[in-house]
Amino acid sequence: MATMKALVYHGNERFGVVERPKPTVSAPTDAIVKLSKTTICGTDLHILKGDVPSVQQGRILGHEGLGTVESVGAGVTGFKPGDRVVIACVTSCATCNMCRRGLSSHCMSGGWVLGNTIDGTQAEYVRIPHADGSLHRVPTGVDEDALVMVSDILPTALECGAMNGGVRPGGSVAIVGAGPVGLSTLMTAQLYSPTTTIVIDIDLARLEAAKKLGATHVVQSGPDTVRQVMEITGGDGVDTAIEAVGIPSTFELCQELIGVGGTIANVGVHGSKGEIYLDKLWNRNIAITTRQVDNITSPMLMKLLEAGKINAKALATHSFNFSDIDSAYVSYQAAAETKALKVIINFE
Amino acid sequence: MATMKALVYHGNERFGVVERPKPTVSAPTDAIVKLSKTTICGTDLHILKGDVPSVQQGRILGHEGLGTVESVGAGVTGFKPGDRVVIACVTSCATCNMCRRGLSSHCMSGGWVLGNTIDGTQAEYVRIPHADGSLHRVPTGVDEDALVMVSDILPTALECGAMNGGVRPGGSVAIVGAGPVGLSTLMTAQLYSPTTTIVIDIDLARLEAAKKLGATHVVQSGPDTVRQVMEITGGDGVDTAIEAVGIPSTFELCQELIGVGGTIANVGVHGSKGEIYLDKLWNRNIAITTRQVDNITSPMLMKLLEAGKINAKALATHSFNFSDIDSAYVSYQAAAETKALKVIINFE
Amino acid sequence: MATMKALVYHGNERFGVVERPKPTVSAPTDAIVKLSKTTICGTDLHILKGDVPSVQQGRILGHEGLGTVESVGAGVTGFKPGDRVVIACVTSCATCNMCRRGLSSHCMSGGWVLGNTIDGTQAEYVRIPHADGSLHRVPTGVDEDALVMVSDILPTALECGAMNGGVRPGGSVAIVGAGPVGLSTLMTAQLYSPTTTIVIDIDLARLEAAKKLGATHVVQSGPDTVRQVMEITGGDGVDTAIEAVGIPSTFELCQELIGVGGTIANVGVHGSKGEIYLDKLWNRNIAITTRQVDNITSPMLMKLLEAGKINAKALATHSFNFSDIDSAYVSYQAAAETKALKVIINFE
Amino acid sequence: MATMKALVYHGNERFGVVERPKPTVSAPTDAIVKLSKTTICGTDLHILKGDVPSVQQGRILGHEGLGTVESVGAGVTGFKPGDRVVIACVTSCATCNMCRRGLSSHCMSGGWVLGNTIDGTQAEYVRIPHADGSLHRVPTGVDEDALVMVSDILPTALECGAMNGGVRPGGSVAIVGAGPVGLSTLMTAQLYSPTTTIVIDIDLARLEAAKKLGATHVVQSGPDTVRQVMEITGGDGVDTAIEAVGIPSTFELCQELIGVGGTIANVGVHGSKGEIYLDKLWNRNIAITTRQVDNITSPMLMKLLEAGKINAKALATHSFNFSDIDSAYVSYQAAAETKALKVIINFE
Repeated sequence: MATMKALVYHGNERFGVVERPKPTVSAPTDAIVKLSKTTICGTDLHILKGDVPSVQQGRILGHEGLGTVESVGAGVTGFKPGDRVVIACVTSCATCNMCRRGLSSHCMSGGWVLGNTIDGTQAEYVRIPHADGSLHRVPTGVDEDALVMVSDILPTALECGAMNGGVRPGGSVAIVGAGPVGLSTLMTAQLYSPTTTIVIDIDLARLEAAKKLGATHVVQSGPDTVRQVMEITGGDGVDTAIEAVGIPSTFELCQELIGVGGTIANVGVHGSKGEIYLDKLWNRNIAITTRQVDNITSPMLMKLLEAGKINAKALATHSFNFSDIDSAYVSYQAAAETKALKVIINFE
Repeated sequence: MATMKALVYHGNERFGVVERPKPTVSAPTDAIVKLSKTTICGTDLHILKGDVPSVQQGRILGHEGLGTVESVGAGVTGFKPGDRVVIACVTSCATCNMCRRGLSSHCMSGGWVLGNTIDGTQAEYVRIPHADGSLHRVPTGVDEDALVMVSDILPTALECGAMNGGVRPGGSVAIVGAGPVGLSTLMTAQLYSPTTTIVIDIDLARLEAAKKLGATHVVQSGPDTVRQVMEITGGDGVDTAIEAVGIPSTFELCQELIGVGGTIANVGVHGSKGEIYLDKLWNRNIAITTRQVDNITSPMLMKLLEAGKINAKALATHSFNFSDIDSAYVSYQAAAETKALKVIINFE
Repeated sequence: MATMKALVYHGNERFGVVERPKPTVSAPTDAIVKLSKTTICGTDLHILKGDVPSVQQGRILGHEGLGTVESVGAGVTGFKPGDRVVIACVTSCATCNMCRRGLSSHCMSGGWVLGNTIDGTQAEYVRIPHADGSLHRVPTGVDEDALVMVSDILPTALECGAMNGGVRPGGSVAIVGAGPVGLSTLMTAQLYSPTTTIVIDIDLARLEAAKKLGATHVVQSGPDTVRQVMEITGGDGVDTAIEAVGIPSTFELCQELIGVGGTIANVGVHGSKGEIYLDKLWNRNIAITTRQVDNITSPMLMKLLEAGKINAKALATHSFNFSDIDSAYVSYQAAAETKALKVIINFE
Repeated sequence: MATMKALVYHGNERFGVVERPKPTVSAPTDAIVKLSKTTICGTDLHILKGDVPSVQQGRILGHEGLGTVESVGAGVTGFKPGDRVVIACVTSCATCNMCRRGLSSHCMSGGWVLGNTIDGTQAEYVRIPHADGSLHRVPTGVDEDALVMVSDILPTALECGAMNGGVRPGGSVAIVGAGPVGLSTLMTAQLYSPTTTIVIDIDLARLEAAKKLGATHVVQSGPDTVRQVMEITGGDGVDTAIEAVGIPSTFELCQELIGVGGTIANVGVHGSKGEIYLDKLWNRNIAITTRQVDNITSPMLMKLLEAGKINAKALATHSFNFSDIDSAYVSYQAAAETKALKVIINFE
């Protein structure tokens, strides 16, 4: 039986690379992809801490990656061995009631399963169910580190942040959180030509990164944050406030920043409930949106990368070989010191 | 100096009809309207309790009404004396930055001012600022009790509820609260042909009214509410949940009823903050909307009334003469016993 | 080898029922459906006349039908033998670039193929490629003659007509052509509560049918048509004009009926070019839409039928056994005399 | 009586600067604006040729301009003497049924009247009816030549072209016509980050200008145009085709360039009817839009100019003093030789 190397979660914050059977096509709609590149998501860190109970011990982690199709089941019509592909972080059958509504994140036989309820992409090979709906052919001539970002972080930023937030030409946007997702949101928001983009974080290095990526204003979060944003916006508040942290206080901050008629778009992953200022917001004509990425913008993002409209390469701050994936985790976990945004893991 | 009779708020829950100077055109954009009909809003009751600090003692109450234009300022181009009009509850200059964006509820020199920061419609005459943007010509041959509902309750139901909630053919809707606003929401939601309309309230008489107005299901609120709604919707939750009460618990209930990809539309007036279940909702692709009515659907509603597409007359359960407005207040305040939805007050 | 009876096109307006091999699953994504009901489309008549060159001699006709899944390929995940299904007239892989954009009518390995480039549904059995994307499970308890209309005519009316036409509460609609598609458009338009629905045709019987189905006005087409519509709309023209005939003159009529800011939605199948009144329309802020049905509203329509919101049964004016399909064609071709709208063909 | 200098149309292609009475406030909603800058529109040239019968001899021409409010009527609430303003080319009462629907181009007491049915802006002073709805306060620190473009050409490009055409990130756009309006459309389309922008014209100098303004491809129009666009788009045709010339053949060209699911947005002013390829388009799921500019994006455009997101200054190729307006007309009429896009006319 053929084997491969894979990063496996052992429970209790323990994980490591082990030898595992190489996956095979088990359903006619499956494809097997040989990975060239993968990366680590904040969610993977949550899994290690035990925050995601659906992930059992023995699971191969990872839901992002780029590689080459090695084999496909008889029911796969869109891909063939040798195709260069990026893997969507959500698996989509494309035909259930959820997928038909554009909600592939809630696909009734898919959704976020990779590195969660089935084995994932931090391995030499991965089995992709519903391959036709879950893979995207990669354009040639585009930096592949940038293309890895199409698995999750770019569509998350675009779909949950910029699009849900209704960013528009001449609009004002506040992004709360300048981590990799917040910065990706900043990049994708600029596709719609807002004229004011305010990035808020406590970490000055990240604010510096935000400036380089085009933020018109940065604000170090503190007791004065609301006042500063109001000053920047002439007292109006912002048209779009994007939560890109995932804790109640940052969501609540968005409610203080939002202007009349504005939209709060939640991007962060939340583990607890928060407060909603109904008494202040009921008559302010606002919208609040939540969303798990549906990867429906992956084709669009591929064209934008090809045309150089998004500098996704800037997110790929660190690179490691897969044999060194432990160091990649260490570097990503210590992002405050290493300044890591996304760490690229290359397979030989 | 000409005088008129008007209902004045004296503070501390005291109010009564007094003699007051008849209003006159004080700005070129003003109109003076002689009232034929007015009504009482839940907000008026809040004012009497002292919940609305912007309303000072001596204020003439009321922001709804139908009547005849008596005189207009030199700058009014759309109306002339003798025109039969319904008065929008929000005053709109039509040209400030808010009004240009469709947010007349936040008009920079208007919004909700009638019976709030300027004298209102529970009087024989009322001065309407920005008359061109704040009056609507009334079609002939339509029941005038029904037309009074175009001042506030019908556009509130349609704009804040049905439209913001994205009600659509074949969709499912839960309306939490079967008071006059909730029932109006039920009526306007049906304009979009949802196939499941669930009305939730504690009062059985109101649920009975909901059934008569077309609710496909009614649920008496209690510990079993969520389970019942899930059973009705096959476990999916609803596409649209409309909050029509104005307290945290009903807003929180909406979060338990909403299905993946759904919209919670807040219609209720809230006086305190509530909880938002970020941990459950962050990945459910939902939207929450709030809105103060903008009266932008008043022309549409007039056509719908004319065509008999909305049975607004059903809301006008009680009628009083203006000389008897005290009884009208009593009846409206005791709605649980009187079964009053909206009380029509007629001027001789 | 198992055989079945099927209606085959022989070229030169000749066709007839012949014995044919029963189809089998030839790709893993195929399903074989045993037909219970089929119907005839205007397009089938065009094929007989030789107007559709893609249809070759020997082709089994038909792209509409309801039946039971008999067998499925290994790659079909959404259906199993015994499932009661309606067949979409367009075949959708659900994952190509067109399907991902909601344009299943232009599916790169599907679209309108049934009874066109592959064998169709006027047969005891049919092979359905991309079964997961091209079949819809049927609700129980709904009249099956009505459900057959979900294959083509109802989604055509709803998607190409009512939805593309932007029909809305309080709006005005003119439907040019009161054949089966025009009447279906009338039914689906009413889901959005327009207050003026004007149906225009030369045939008084069809106008009578339109009245019964809820048209607020009917106009017999002639030199006076434009004047009459203008009178009905107070000189404004209509908000939505729907072309449901398929000839240049009716499309041109729509351009004379449309009001400022309105939408002309083309539903008809056209065989020649027409004129567009650019000199009159360039500054009237209108939209013109065209569309081949994408069957994306089939789930919604199923719910609406279940709830009794569309009287699709009214379209099924005539019934025949499959052994009598020749008579069905005769009846449908002579619709002016037989008053046939849709003819249901039942398999034993 | 105070007088001023004004450019007057004498009929038969004759025009010239004459002395005229200075306008005064004649309705309470009027403002008098002292012009600082005006410009010439293609429409003005059509007027001189007699193509616009609504313009009578003796009319002061011009519907664009920037200046200072000199006086206002009693009903004007948004502006006061001394305010620096840009004049919208369409006059909007803001409250009629058309304006309420966002169709100020069809305002029932306004629309395009300046330099058409009332005296216009090619004069030292102009009377602006419905001043509150028809003027826009100018931001400080922005080049005023660029701001003049907010009167007409920029909102025309944005509203009729980029927005109506549904330009979106990653999309492809073909702009037929590289005159000032076509180039403005190119600039505003880029606000939405399309990745392919193809500009088509016969004039190589204009194509050169298009390249400088960011076109990804230029095509000299000729028998090979369609083939070239298809090659650029991989045979798909474009997502958006924008007609910016105003003759039937260019509109017809757009129909050959448009891809499945695309939108043809008409920007050009047309004087005759054209052909529509119904036989080719009926099933291609396209939209065609027409529009006269509504100036509803003027506030947005002002912010974009302030932020440097649109290089509108590039349109202002030539400048003249008002005393030299004859030369300005000559230069603009001979644009093929002078390379004039927009000519700025400065008042002392």
